[in-house]
Amino acid sequence: MQTTSNQQLIKVEEGSIVSPLGFSATGLHTKVKRKRNDLGLIYCDVPAEAAAVYTLNQIIAAPLTVTKESIGYEGKLQAVVINSGNANACTGKQGFLDAMAMRDAVANIFSINNHYVAVASTGVIGEKMPMEKIIPGIDNLDPQKTIQGAENFNEAILTTDTCSKTTCYETVIDGVKITMGGSAKGSGMIAPNMATMLGFITTDANIPHVHLQAALKEVTNKTFNRITVDGDTSTNDMVIVMASGLANNSSLTPEHPEWDKFLHILNQVCQDLAIMIARDGEGATKLIEVNVVGALNDDEAGKIAKTVVGSDLVKTMIYGADPNWGRLMMAVGRSGMTINPLTIDIKIGPHQLLMNSEPVNYEEAVLSNYLTHSEVDIHINLNIGTGIGKAWGCDLTYDYVRINASYRT
Amino acid sequence: MQTTSNQQLIKVEEGSIVSPLGFSATGLHTKVKRKRNDLGLIYCDVPAEAAAVYTLNQIIAAPLTVTKESIGYEGKLQAVVINSGNANACTGKQGFLDAMAMRDAVANIFSINNHYVAVASTGVIGEKMPMEKIIPGIDNLDPQKTIQGAENFNEAILTTDTCSKTTCYETVIDGVKITMGGSAKGSGMIAPNMATMLGFITTDANIPHVHLQAALKEVTNKTFNRITVDGDTSTNDMVIVMASGLANNSSLTPEHPEWDKFLHILNQVCQDLAIMIARDGEGATKLIEVNVVGALNDDEAGKIAKTVVGSDLVKTMIYGADPNWGRLMMAVGRSGMTINPLTIDIKIGPHQLLMNSEPVNYEEAVLSNYLTHSEVDIHINLNIGTGIGKAWGCDLTYDYVRINASYRT
Repeated sequence: MQTTSNQQLIKVEEGSIVSPLGFSATGLHTKVKRKRNDLGLIYCDVPAEAAAVYTLNQIIAAPLTVTKESIGYEGKLQAVVINSGNANACTGKQGFLDAMAMRDAVANIFSINNHYVAVASTGVIGEKMPMEKIIPGIDNLDPQKTIQGAENFNEAILTTDTCSKTTCYETVIDGVKITMGGSAKGSGMIAPNMATMLGFITTDANIPHVHLQAALKEVTNKTFNRITVDGDTSTNDMVIVMASGLANNSSLTPEHPEWDKFLHILNQVCQDLAIMIARDGEGATKLIEVNVVGALNDDEAGKIAKTVVGSDLVKTMIYGADPNWGRLMMAVGRSGMTINPLTIDIKIGPHQLLMNSEPVNYEEAVLSNYLTHSEVDIHINLNIGTGIGKAWGCDLTYDYVRINASYRT
Repeated sequence: MQTTSNQQLIKVEEGSIVSPLGFSATGLHTKVKRKRNDLGLIYCDVPAEAAAVYTLNQIIAAPLTVTKESIGYEGKLQAVVINSGNANACTGKQGFLDAMAMRDAVANIFSINNHYVAVASTGVIGEKMPMEKIIPGIDNLDPQKTIQGAENFNEAILTTDTCSKTTCYETVIDGVKITMGGSAKGSGMIAPNMATMLGFITTDANIPHVHLQAALKEVTNKTFNRITVDGDTSTNDMVIVMASGLANNSSLTPEHPEWDKFLHILNQVCQDLAIMIARDGEGATKLIEVNVVGALNDDEAGKIAKTVVGSDLVKTMIYGADPNWGRLMMAVGRSGMTINPLTIDIKIGPHQLLMNSEPVNYEEAVLSNYLTHSEVDIHINLNIGTGIGKAWGCDLTYDYVRINASYRT
């Protein structure tokens, strides 16, 4: 266990979504995908308070509609089922019936109300769900064997991801230990809001649905909504949080003296997952972090950071380790936010390139060398206000094109 | 000469920017670029009525500031000088002085008012202008030898373009022949409004500055603003139109009975150039045209078309000839425009894929084969209104990444 810069938060190195009290998870292979697990399940011993945020794409995949309806019932979830390999999006009425059938099958296995079940899917769009594989898969989810650790689950939710993404933290609220774990998948279609990303967060904190929902929304705007891989927005994006309440802290509300601590741990879990998604963007070789300061306000700073990190020309320049910083200025200028073209400072890593919008001398070889690192930081000071914001992304590479020119083959 | 579908417009196959009465042009090599011409000039025998549209990027290159000031003086231009290889953008105060010096040098050679001179630059951002090459280059522009045809000019304005882009049409207004020619460069940074694109249009029509400006703005929104290569917007975009008036038609205003004919020829010239730019996008192997009908209005239709044609996932799918049409739905859904998710029809070429948002059977092999063509048409009917719009783009390929990972080397 390692202490983070904030002493109130402790990273649980071996932790996962099954670390918080009450949660178990599993994953198995139904042969929708060739080799890797493709069906995952999270189960909670009690109906957990639930919250979720969804894609802003107007074309919404069937499982999201079903999940919204489930959470809308009582604000509670006890199980989440996820399949990968097929997104069940643009599948018409049959797709909706299929998502409902998945929900009912899970409710049946665990003998719970079907409104306590959420459904998520990720994979190719527009192909009929292989229900002949998925339903028997669900039937094989043995309630007695779900608590296998989260590895099988973490693998089951991946598509073109090259690695699973999980994180876990602890904090203390009301003198009791609160644990929060998260698991995510990402890869392509990761922007402008959320991603083809699925995020699943579990905690044993005691917090009612309505405040959990508000907290998730606030934190998503600074984490999952600040990453981009290719500027596309999936039909299937969703982040679900389940809070079992088994830690037995007094109920969390914005008036609770340690409310900020809860926001902090939720932000840390979401930020960890968001950065892991950006780093593992399709074909990516580098994580890019853009920090904007001196903007009109935090919102504008975040939007400028995201425009810069999302520019194909910036992304290819970093892939090529070519310090062609004019592209950073180009992206700042096209962000649509308030800037003064004459007062901009830019640093790449520790290397100052621009002061008050005038080029400063730098050693090209040193800068090129910095750009070969696996993490590249860009710092932009607009010098017009006090707004700050960050965004994360990745480089654009031959492999992005290769992966997406033949995704289905 | 070929007649277009509109019988009033005649394409001049060998025509160019020097076809309209009064115009000459040249280009030469100043060694800013290794081999190709890198300095171009358009000259008009008389001060021509002028109009221009500029990048919406807030970081504006110095030559645009100088050109705005020139046109602002009397609404007239007699010469335009363009250099390629260096964009003179993000070059601070010195960059502005350099652009002024280019203007003055041209005015001096031709003994004209320096406010009749426009300046344009394209190339790398953020590097000091090589004035020691450019000014002697301008001094070598022999006023007696400028009328060499447009080939040397057309080459001089290119950067990563693989071919020059020129077009020319004739029409008849007031019983006299009106000729209009255009030349453009494009390639990357081509969106969301205009491009790293420069467009130069000449005509011998008689039309005052103010109406020429209004016509250019109207036409740009349906042509140059409807193309995208990579979603980035250059600091240097500019389209300039010069009208010599030497055709001696009666002065064109929106009240003129043949005003629409003038709009039509201007639209055709701009659309030809825009499509040539999209087809020659960096690394492109295919031209993509997206047609949207049945939208709420024309503006929304155009924006949806541009979102679809600008999606990296759509672009890679077409590069890979993979009919993964779910990505088209994804892009429609993230456009932010009004849609009904249940009423969308989609065709790729002549092949229907979706009716009322439900997949229809199609032969994958036939569709894949269609996608190997050098021009791919996508038709989307939203079935909610009468709005129609088009946009053009290109596929995203390994070569786009290669070109932009090492642009300066």
